[in-house]
Amino acid sequence: MLAIHLRRSRLSRVVGAKKSELERRSDILAAAKLVALDGGLETVTARTVAAEADLSSGLVYFYYQTKNGLLHALLARLLETTLDGPEDGFGEDLPADVALHEMITTELEGLHTQRDEVDLLFQFYFFRRSIDFRDQIDTGLRLYTDAIHPVTDRFAREHDLDPDAFRSTLVALIQGAAIDVVRRPESFSAANLLQVVAALATSTPRHSEDAI
Amino acid sequence: MLAIHLRRSRLSRVVGAKKSELERRSDILAAAKLVALDGGLETVTARTVAAEADLSSGLVYFYYQTKNGLLHALLARLLETTLDGPEDGFGEDLPADVALHEMITTELEGLHTQRDEVDLLFQFYFFRRSIDFRDQIDTGLRLYTDAIHPVTDRFAREHDLDPDAFRSTLVALIQGAAIDVVRRPESFSAANLLQVVAALATSTPRHSEDAI
Repeated sequence: MLAIHLRRSRLSRVVGAKKSELERRSDILAAAKLVALDGGLETVTARTVAAEADLSSGLVYFYYQTKNGLLHALLARLLETTLDGPEDGFGEDLPADVALHEMITTELEGLHTQRDEVDLLFQFYFFRRSIDFRDQIDTGLRLYTDAIHPVTDRFAREHDLDPDAFRSTLVALIQGAAIDVVRRPESFSAANLLQVVAALATSTPRHSEDAI
Repeated sequence: MLAIHLRRSRLSRVVGAKKSELERRSDILAAAKLVALDGGLETVTARTVAAEADLSSGLVYFYYQTKNGLLHALLARLLETTLDGPEDGFGEDLPADVALHEMITTELEGLHTQRDEVDLLFQFYFFRRSIDFRDQIDTGLRLYTDAIHPVTDRFAREHDLDPDAFRSTLVALIQGAAIDVVRRPESFSAANLLQVVAALATSTPRHSEDAI
């Protein structure tokens, strides 16, 4: 019996340990997110997160050595899940107008379902200037901008708009919509925004006006 | 001599005291702003602000009884100076397109010169969820939206756009531009944004298309 007990325990330790490390990290970050949403980023500590995840503080320290390490890991996860942007080659088979419209629709509707995550991203950005969360977020935003590049460039070319200016404007609009989602979720309407952008963007483009 | 001295001192106490209260409050808020810009809102305390203003902590407590009182007063001042919006009757004498263009120009260029203030406003919005800075800012934004109402409504009517949807879109764009000003001041260009908005907004409106 003793041998069996030992073998089982060793087995569960070995098998469990591999699965457990990923799961534990995931549990800890999920708990950190809840703590942050509940009381703000400044309340995220090994102690509060451990209590939320029903683990020991020691385990939280074991995986994320410092409070900042934990916050950076939480931010990295938020960036992965919220600032992913369209996939490679998105909309290539569609007309430029349609591709742009679909992309903006996806982005704006995505904001709505990820309100908590968007709120936290902004909290990170405007939290304690001394810590370099801003660099991490700016990198995420640069990747995002790269992802929307092909779609916005095609549209801009067809409408005689400066591609960089157009992309910046669109990113500004999406950022501003993100704030609205946090600020007044009950009145935010992706459809409204989209309707205005579409109405403006599908009016006769300038180069065809010139051609008349 | 004694009588004269007494009279002078009483005079300066009376005259000086009236002037001094406003000035002191102004000095304290200016110092609080510097402390917040330097180390973040969480470093604003009676002690740090008193040191920055070269006053005693007691005097800071005298004017602003609590840390939150001080922060709310700082926020109120920021809202007054940054979210003022166009004046009553702005652009009434101009065509709707021109009025909108002038208004957006003023707003976007204003953001650039008020980068620090905009940064602090966002810090307030995303700082400690438990305290009601958000309500104070939302009130400011509602007043701002009221101020741009007449200009956006006229433009929307002429372009067959839903007025509320158009106004929301414009506020989102300005909010997003505000984030860009904080995030990458070196590459933010009000002119670029304006060029895109103007190019889209001055294309043939939909109702004249329908008329063709």
